Amino acid sequence: MGVIHKFKGQHGGFDWEGVAITKYPNERARDVIKKQMIGPDDGAQHFDMRYFEVAPGGYTSFDNHTHDHGVLVVRGRGKVRLGKEKYDIGFGDIIYISPNDDHQFENNYDEPLGFICVIPPKKKK
Amino acid sequence: MGVIHKFKGQHGGFDWEGVAITKYPNERARDVIKKQMIGPDDGAQHFDMRYFEVAPGGYTSFDNHTHDHGVLVVRGRGKVRLGKEKYDIGFGDIIYISPNDDHQFENNYDEPLGFICVIPPKKKK
Repeated sequence: MGVIHKFKGQHGGFDWEGVAITKYPNERARDVIKKQMIGPDDGAQHFDMRYFEVAPGGYTSFDNHTHDHGVLVVRGRGKVRLGKEKYDIGFGDIIYISPNDDHQFENNYDEPLGFICVIPPKKKK
Repeated sequence: MGVIHKFKGQHGGFDWEGVAITKYPNERARDVIKKQMIGPDDGAQHFDMRYFEVAPGGYTSFDNHTHDHGVLVVRGRGKVRLGKEKYDIGFGDIIYISPNDDHQFENNYDEPLGFICVIPPKKKK
């Protein structure tokens, strides 16, 4: 049976019922929080949807890996490094990060940068 | 190499560069448009991200299938039928629709209901 996580953050931060902050497991990042929106706890086996929020001055880790990302910016603005270039991003922008693309998000503005990020399921160990 | 689809719709409709309306292939629906946000045309092999917009008075088809959906409401409000119940939904709400869940979205309000919907990759024919 499906699950609804009601949005609680209309007037401030982006929070949802039944969605807690999870560790963003990367010491090469700065001022980033991660929330698991949809994933194995909901029974989802085929994709994960996560929410990342980068505080002003923060950045995600500079990454390159074999899985891809589907990203939608839902709050604020910032930059994404994709390959060798950096691009301005803001509310509503869609970013597809291919397997093995260098990528990093950063926020040089004064409001939080929030985006959802879809990944394929983690491989079973 | 990745792809960015810039958002063009800040002041009206939700549109993106390089993202066209695609047919919503269902005659059991009413007043629904579909846009492929990220998919095979971008090189994505592991998930599809689509945008659906249901006009006032419209509804998606009543569906039940073996693939699941990850949904985030990004515009307006409406209702989702999930199993036997209907629930109010609005901006920011997350809905996970499990495999084989009955589901349908409807918009009884006076503004468009827009949501993104993630699905696993379509099976190769």
